[in-house]
Amino acid sequence: MSGTTQDDYTDRYARRVRGMTTSEIRALFSVANRPEVVSLAGGSPYIAALPLDAVGEMLGRLAAEQGTSTLQYGIGQGTAALREHICDVMSMSGIDGASPDDVVVTVGGQQALDLIARVFLDPGDVVLAEGPTYVGALGVFQAAQAQVAHVAMDSDGLIPAALAETLDAVARSGRRAKFLYTIPTYQNPAGVTLTDARREEVLDICAAHGLLVVEDDPYGMLSFEGGAPRPLRARRRDGVFYVSTFSKTFAPGLRVGWVLAPHAVREKLVMASEASILCPSAFAQSAVTQYLATMPWREQIKVYRETYRERREALLSALADLMPEGTTWTRPEGGLFVWATLPDGLDSKAMMPRAIAARVAYVPGTGFYADGSGTAHMRLNFSFSAPERLREGVRRLSGVMEQELSMRAVFGSAGRTHHRRGAAAADAPGPDVA
Amino acid sequence: MSGTTQDDYTDRYARRVRGMTTSEIRALFSVANRPEVVSLAGGSPYIAALPLDAVGEMLGRLAAEQGTSTLQYGIGQGTAALREHICDVMSMSGIDGASPDDVVVTVGGQQALDLIARVFLDPGDVVLAEGPTYVGALGVFQAAQAQVAHVAMDSDGLIPAALAETLDAVARSGRRAKFLYTIPTYQNPAGVTLTDARREEVLDICAAHGLLVVEDDPYGMLSFEGGAPRPLRARRRDGVFYVSTFSKTFAPGLRVGWVLAPHAVREKLVMASEASILCPSAFAQSAVTQYLATMPWREQIKVYRETYRERREALLSALADLMPEGTTWTRPEGGLFVWATLPDGLDSKAMMPRAIAARVAYVPGTGFYADGSGTAHMRLNFSFSAPERLREGVRRLSGVMEQELSMRAVFGSAGRTHHRRGAAAADAPGPDVA
Repeated sequence: MSGTTQDDYTDRYARRVRGMTTSEIRALFSVANRPEVVSLAGGSPYIAALPLDAVGEMLGRLAAEQGTSTLQYGIGQGTAALREHICDVMSMSGIDGASPDDVVVTVGGQQALDLIARVFLDPGDVVLAEGPTYVGALGVFQAAQAQVAHVAMDSDGLIPAALAETLDAVARSGRRAKFLYTIPTYQNPAGVTLTDARREEVLDICAAHGLLVVEDDPYGMLSFEGGAPRPLRARRRDGVFYVSTFSKTFAPGLRVGWVLAPHAVREKLVMASEASILCPSAFAQSAVTQYLATMPWREQIKVYRETYRERREALLSALADLMPEGTTWTRPEGGLFVWATLPDGLDSKAMMPRAIAARVAYVPGTGFYADGSGTAHMRLNFSFSAPERLREGVRRLSGVMEQELSMRAVFGSAGRTHHRRGAAAADAPGPDVA
Repeated sequence: MSGTTQDDYTDRYARRVRGMTTSEIRALFSVANRPEVVSLAGGSPYIAALPLDAVGEMLGRLAAEQGTSTLQYGIGQGTAALREHICDVMSMSGIDGASPDDVVVTVGGQQALDLIARVFLDPGDVVLAEGPTYVGALGVFQAAQAQVAHVAMDSDGLIPAALAETLDAVARSGRRAKFLYTIPTYQNPAGVTLTDARREEVLDICAAHGLLVVEDDPYGMLSFEGGAPRPLRARRRDGVFYVSTFSKTFAPGLRVGWVLAPHAVREKLVMASEASILCPSAFAQSAVTQYLATMPWREQIKVYRETYRERREALLSALADLMPEGTTWTRPEGGLFVWATLPDGLDSKAMMPRAIAARVAYVPGTGFYADGSGTAHMRLNFSFSAPERLREGVRRLSGVMEQELSMRAVFGSAGRTHHRRGAAAADAPGPDVA
């Protein structure tokens, strides 16, 4: 029995946790995982596409034959063997000549972001980030007591002129911008990709302002229409941190990601990681190393690509066929997500309980902004569910929206929910839906 | 090629990383892992004692048969199944009636400490801790920009009067003490255990001062002479955080630990964990759950106990037979470590390079203090090496010490190395030797 429900600890908390409150949306999401609900909310890869028997056999051997090392402590930076493979993986994306010595293995891409934040962010520092951006990154920046300045995107990704303007505004306000956090390829949640020309512009603007760049690239290999543009880190080395993960190309349940850092910073990241988790799992690292060394992982990525392309088509067709007039959405060329904009007057957050009641779930747009905006948007995932289920989800969702629209036509609208600045982090869904 | 060696990022770092420098001792430890070196430095369990074939078979099945969940994302708090098992494990130690809802699964005990620090520590806050204490905890508190006030121990563990005095001194200085961090049972590195009577006293003092208690109990099950005293958390629930891990009872390579927290705080810890790592590994959690559910884990702990008891005897006999006069050491009733005090005039940190040259490694005492003290001490591990190898290590070590003593007799001593406050964290060894 855990008895006490009153929070007797409030006056002892660190400043960074004040304002952290449990979200109603989180509570809704626990319902969203029920089998009768079609969830368009998750960010989960379709693990059933993996050759699970072969993976099982591989993992079993790693413990039986190499258990005295794979089940033991390891070093904070991660194993040399995995870091070498990671450099090979990055070279496939166009990042040539990276040194394994400059790679730090992390607990998924999330920990890489956290380590960078710990090494660079003091309370009050500013991080620039696309608006909308990854929920988990907002959580990191909030925990670091940093302020997020969103930079607008269009269908070509981050708008360079908006970046320059935002940087100027931050400088005028006397605050210090430490880095740009960006997901240039198949962005989460927007589903858009920064064009080649803009990549150069963005790098030039950051270099001119002495701004570091944190490039988060979990989806780059999941392209549906030819390859992705070369990463920022492939174009410029100085001042660029490259973060990625095996969660989308192999399996998220092992929690293995990495950061390629400028050499001078790598040791700080390792020390920050040791203070946080001592060392990444030796077993998980061996599993990924063995997977890359002995299994047809490039072919597996093709399987993921084909599967997700088909599902994207299914989602886009369903949206075109079923969504109420006035709804718009992005058309991603890779990745896992479509970003939808609702007809005027609809509020994705307010609508959420009714969607759950109609057995469909999505992530309201507010989760992806630090400033409470985003009520007009929602993120829809297409990687996890089969095509017919995606269509059924859109059917249910459009039903809810039609109902909202008719109610609005009858009773008028009180306008979209007003959100105070800082309220957004509490709306962030849990990791099962990130 | 990683090119740049100059640190161009210095003026961008957060305040918490200033003063973090790479340690010479860390560099030495990379040498200490060579096979010709007898390492008394590590903190590694003797994994070869596990039934690795059976563990391998179990892990293989988890991926092959349940891969769509074990290789997928999970929730931030950890699986309900594992949290229930953890409550069973804790009840074996005397902690009855804990709710799985109040348990947060973490990446080893280290992440549990980090989460508690994130939730409670602002820069300048004070943490009380035994002197000496766990290296990794000092790393956490330094990263949180907290100050550590050490409390003296004797062979009965933490001295209650010293705790009260330290609390008064902190209060007089106008700083705020947030919690006592303590390893009451088979302490790392000191190898001593807080007596029953003192446990009550310590709890009373903390309660009277409104001080939270963070009880770190990784070794409690590794008792050599009857059971361990009941944990602090078994005696008092309010204000006590109980941290433990499967690293010493199963395998550290999976990185699975936990914290049992007061109910009101649990959600903050979960949110802090999500911001740091999104969620703990579903695969590692399933592995531990399955291990606890289907394998003879209580018998395995007995195997560890027997093995370590025999090795402790070997180490203690070797010390008695071979150490130079004036050396003293603790006699642990469980756990992994002996804490040795050198004859007057010897400096464990200064002696380290010569010890490595003589093919023996230990952890100098300075790593276990936040204030640079500890040069007169060293930590010796007895869990990892076989008895005859432990004896050989002590033989080499005593040879180095004898040599140091005769040099001192001939040339006199410049006294022990002086260490400035704050220098200690840089001496901390990497996780492979923690």
